[in-house]
Amino acid sequence: MEILVTYDIKTVTKEGQKRLRRVAKVCEAFGFRVQDSVFECRLDGSEMLELRDRLESEIDGNVDSIAIYRLREPFSSYVVRLGADPDFGPDGPLFL
Amino acid sequence: MEILVTYDIKTVTKEGQKRLRRVAKVCEAFGFRVQDSVFECRLDGSEMLELRDRLESEIDGNVDSIAIYRLREPFSSYVVRLGADPDFGPDGPLFL
Repeated sequence: MEILVTYDIKTVTKEGQKRLRRVAKVCEAFGFRVQDSVFECRLDGSEMLELRDRLESEIDGNVDSIAIYRLREPFSSYVVRLGADPDFGPDGPLFL
Repeated sequence: MEILVTYDIKTVTKEGQKRLRRVAKVCEAFGFRVQDSVFECRLDGSEMLELRDRLESEIDGNVDSIAIYRLREPFSSYVVRLGADPDFGPDGPLFL
């Protein structure tokens, strides 16, 4: 399945900055960063569960938020990108 | 259609901070903020075109990036939210 992960980690404390780094690291293991806090991923069902569990374990559920959207497929047909090209998504120039 | 707008505006300059405020304002006119730089919107075709045009006119295409994803519908069935609840999306508690 093709999914989008977006996150909002409160970084006012050093702990928050650590959580942000850890969340980004988890996402990097599963997909491609297309914006500062947005990743596009292609996962099977078990990877999706693992991603969800790992993200859930990294955040402070009282202040951070993460959303995982299952996208229309192929999502590249359903996305409009404006401005600077991320150049590193699964359908970006690096993979042509 | 149900769409997700995510944006990454470079705010190192005052101009960038202004662009960020303007982009957020455009998004607020069309949908619901669910994270700092993420909005969920329900739009018809002409609203979608208007949103796209207005966003395109606000950004610096060399450094900012915006992505507009058309979501599976109803997207509320295809999103997993972890952590703090945004409480203000189109399907959030405010609207129950």
